Amino acid sequence: MTNNLGELQDRYLAFIADRGWEEFHTPKNLTMAISVEASELAELYQWQDNVPVEQILEDDDLRERSREELADVMIYCLSMANELDIDVEEAIADKLDQNEARFDSETADKIARDLSQWQR
Amino acid sequence: MTNNLGELQDRYLAFIADRGWEEFHTPKNLTMAISVEASELAELYQWQDNVPVEQILEDDDLRERSREELADVMIYCLSMANELDIDVEEAIADKLDQNEARFDSETADKIARDLSQWQR
Amino acid sequence: MTNNLGELQDRYLAFIADRGWEEFHTPKNLTMAISVEASELAELYQWQDNVPVEQILEDDDLRERSREELADVMIYCLSMANELDIDVEEAIADKLDQNEARFDSETADKIARDLSQWQR
Amino acid sequence: MTNNLGELQDRYLAFIADRGWEEFHTPKNLTMAISVEASELAELYQWQDNVPVEQILEDDDLRERSREELADVMIYCLSMANELDIDVEEAIADKLDQNEARFDSETADKIARDLSQWQR
Repeated sequence: MTNNLGELQDRYLAFIADRGWEEFHTPKNLTMAISVEASELAELYQWQDNVPVEQILEDDDLRERSREELADVMIYCLSMANELDIDVEEAIADKLDQNEARFDSETADKIARDLSQWQR
Repeated sequence: MTNNLGELQDRYLAFIADRGWEEFHTPKNLTMAISVEASELAELYQWQDNVPVEQILEDDDLRERSREELADVMIYCLSMANELDIDVEEAIADKLDQNEARFDSETADKIARDLSQWQR
Repeated sequence: MTNNLGELQDRYLAFIADRGWEEFHTPKNLTMAISVEASELAELYQWQDNVPVEQILEDDDLRERSREELADVMIYCLSMANELDIDVEEAIADKLDQNEARFDSETADKIARDLSQWQR
Repeated sequence: MTNNLGELQDRYLAFIADRGWEEFHTPKNLTMAISVEASELAELYQWQDNVPVEQILEDDDLRERSREELADVMIYCLSMANELDIDVEEAIADKLDQNEARFDSETADKIARDLSQWQR
């Protein structure tokens, strides 16, 4: 069984339809759901210092919980994309196009320089 | 040029590396970025009533801005997944497995019934 | 015992100091805590339609849970204000000054008109 | 002119009523507004390392922007409290009572110990 995004999206839609939950999945509600799940992910790191990823990866439990919360965020993103008839991969590619044009080397250097004073 | 998730992830990684921004992409910072972008998406719907998706789809500008904010959320999700060495499609599939088991028909009916009193 | 904001702030500071938790209360961490608690408040309303406050007030349990989450948001706001040596009431008064000047009657009418198309 | 919370709350209510915006200030919408403003505060610290407050206080601009975003969060909290007829100071005091009982010295020590491995 492959798991491409389109198939996962269809599977989630069937899950919602089977349970009679479609009426709750309005765009407004879905933006709240995405934001709430994003906060559940952030909560895992809330009181930690800004440690490097290598230290996170040593903690299997934290990694697993992050994986689950990240999945929740993305599931609601897929549901929102489905509601608005958005092709997720295409939307991401278009945004990367924009970012690559917007952050030219001069702008990027300035940002890195400004941020460097806030690193330890 | 195809745009599967793995390729988009690689493209974003190159974008960050080219700009010398890797040091800022710690797990903690990325959870904040995901949450901040999720709020930018929610902000578009903040003062709207909970209107059906059909009405949203009539507004090309709102749909386009939603598409961009959704892409931002997902780009940071892909970056987080990359940091933690998480296969996004697999994580989503595993979470759907869990949800399908957890929300059996009795539980789902109870949720729908509880929520029905809060609908108009 | 009175409960003005300054006293509540001092009481919270003593609570944190007694438990040896000061080192975790950095500005960055506190912004995450405020945001996480704000999401816990939003979560209570996530799947509800946008019902009028009168209906909410009939549900004692929802009102009580909202009261607790709102208190959590404000406690972390007071802690952040304390860290940054901000007088909360003065900061609010200054922001209200700004808003009153910024949203003159013409601007306010335009906003209400734009939003009216998104109400039911 | 004094600025106690009750007076600020009344002033904000008049601001909203004068502009005909009351209908938008439902509990659901206000939870979104609180969350969106909380994210605007977090955004200021998003790419910074977890630096001590002393360094933040050297940057007048960052402190001022934090003060404004914090005021926005609290203004919407006051508005929500007003809608739900919640006495803010009392709600905070009750939550501090709960926290003081819940986090006894043993529990607090365990939390500090667990978090210490995530500090640098």
